[in-house]
Amino acid sequence: MKQSINCKSIHIHRGQNHLKWSNRVAPVQTINSGDIVHFDTIDGSNGQITKHSTNDVIHTFDISKADPAFGPVYVNGAEPGDALKIEILELEMSDWGWTAIVPGFGLLADEFAEPVLKIWQLDPALPYAVFKEGIHIPKRPFLGVMGVAPGMEGEFSMIPPLDTGGNLDCRYLTVGSTLYLPVQVTGALFSCGDGHVAQGDGEVCGTAIETSLKATLRLSVVKNQPWIAAPQFQTPSRKAAVAAAEVEADKGSYAATGIDSDLLQAARKATRNLIQWLVNTKGLTRAEAYMLTSVAGDLKITEIVDLPNYAVAMSLPLNIFVGE
Amino acid sequence: MKQSINCKSIHIHRGQNHLKWSNRVAPVQTINSGDIVHFDTIDGSNGQITKHSTNDVIHTFDISKADPAFGPVYVNGAEPGDALKIEILELEMSDWGWTAIVPGFGLLADEFAEPVLKIWQLDPALPYAVFKEGIHIPKRPFLGVMGVAPGMEGEFSMIPPLDTGGNLDCRYLTVGSTLYLPVQVTGALFSCGDGHVAQGDGEVCGTAIETSLKATLRLSVVKNQPWIAAPQFQTPSRKAAVAAAEVEADKGSYAATGIDSDLLQAARKATRNLIQWLVNTKGLTRAEAYMLTSVAGDLKITEIVDLPNYAVAMSLPLNIFVGE
Repeated sequence: MKQSINCKSIHIHRGQNHLKWSNRVAPVQTINSGDIVHFDTIDGSNGQITKHSTNDVIHTFDISKADPAFGPVYVNGAEPGDALKIEILELEMSDWGWTAIVPGFGLLADEFAEPVLKIWQLDPALPYAVFKEGIHIPKRPFLGVMGVAPGMEGEFSMIPPLDTGGNLDCRYLTVGSTLYLPVQVTGALFSCGDGHVAQGDGEVCGTAIETSLKATLRLSVVKNQPWIAAPQFQTPSRKAAVAAAEVEADKGSYAATGIDSDLLQAARKATRNLIQWLVNTKGLTRAEAYMLTSVAGDLKITEIVDLPNYAVAMSLPLNIFVGE
Repeated sequence: MKQSINCKSIHIHRGQNHLKWSNRVAPVQTINSGDIVHFDTIDGSNGQITKHSTNDVIHTFDISKADPAFGPVYVNGAEPGDALKIEILELEMSDWGWTAIVPGFGLLADEFAEPVLKIWQLDPALPYAVFKEGIHIPKRPFLGVMGVAPGMEGEFSMIPPLDTGGNLDCRYLTVGSTLYLPVQVTGALFSCGDGHVAQGDGEVCGTAIETSLKATLRLSVVKNQPWIAAPQFQTPSRKAAVAAAEVEADKGSYAATGIDSDLLQAARKATRNLIQWLVNTKGLTRAEAYMLTSVAGDLKITEIVDLPNYAVAMSLPLNIFVGE
């Protein structure tokens, strides 16, 4: 008789969420190291944005309800000084998503005062999301939020990431990747949420292609790893068939740099310069270009040592432009 | 009779260099838009470091002689408001290179007080450089310095990059890539140098695998591009055979993040955390690990909007570790 490796089927439901990081949030489930857990998560707007929403919704958007985390899950045997290993096994996407420019939020907040909401129809049969005619963004889903409870007392906002993880918005945490988080409290208290269909390094306009994800994760305790002071992760090899197809479809990239004695300003300049390139050469509005750099463009620090000036590049893969 | 497209053979020699950026440096050559130019460059130490040097050379290293630029080349027809297009056609490597930790220089300068010099033997028959037994770094040569004269009056150090380029230390400027620089003076006055065999995003220890490169570049004027305010570049498709081989050899990556309310500190933490991972799991000394992150590790800004905390990842490809 065939034996299943994982006998338990553990589900975290949409109602089981919290809006602050705190070690006082009671666990909704207790598991053993190595158990597989299914999380049914709501998008980062916490349901405030629907597929029928318009720009107006941004005016009434309540940021205090944003980025709910689903859990927490208590992992037996996890103690401070251990690491929690999270294997991302499966991510199931919804058939729609959204991207927004929210006034006061984002890398160029001072330059984009008007709220803009874009609703994406996500055809499950297609491996990409259609930004507009001729611009396709590959679907590479991940959870923007994965974290464990901080050891510090108090309640902490969901928006900034912490050493214990949280809103990392790290696009590399796709299926096949493994995340390691430093355990700071007994049981670790793991939660996740904030589904993204695609995002570039930086998430510059403040939002990705936001969506509700169903996630299947394996959580394991790695004993005695006190040197893991902040999140670390391993990504899978690109040897799989999908990677070969990606190479075949590759058209190189275009990048604009920003040079400045302040690293943040260098990143702002690079982003602004690539937006200008998109406006000039692709006929996009500035708001469209800003959202496109957020969902598909990558901020890379090309040099961080040639003082007093840093160089940051905002780089966009050219195969998102189809039919050129 | 077969016609050669390029009738002129234009050479810039090792003696034709300058140690300040200035629009007062007299051109050593005048060319037409579209001409191909061969540059015979000396490494960024300007010959101060030889293949027989030891750590002692760092004590007497004269930074004012570092990063000589070869040229400048006056390009007929280039005027302020134009862009200079630089196509990187060929880069010929030397058979040795060096990497150093120079006190007072580098992202973690305060943590690495001792000078360290590493001399690399570069076998021209191999596509990689051997860091030590079991650690191979793919050769991906580029010029750390490519720039045009600044419009501003004055003499400027070679070390920090400017909006007109210079010490960009941008690892994407390999053969097949195209760089665009904003022209600020009549004739553009292009120069280049600072050969690198390999480097990661950031060049965190302050040096790459430094070497003398022979470079073949095509320089062309693109009229009336005033919106190109800082360097921009296009990279080639990975469809070539070498890319397929790269995918085949891919083993994924390992990354450590740094989370901080200051972007620079986040980058420092990510670098420090990956160094610790290398020390713990690969048995390297801290100095070895620092140099390895500089020549092979990439600083990526994973999110720059979840204020007040930024997330930066230092990511290392795992296929540099052979035989594992």
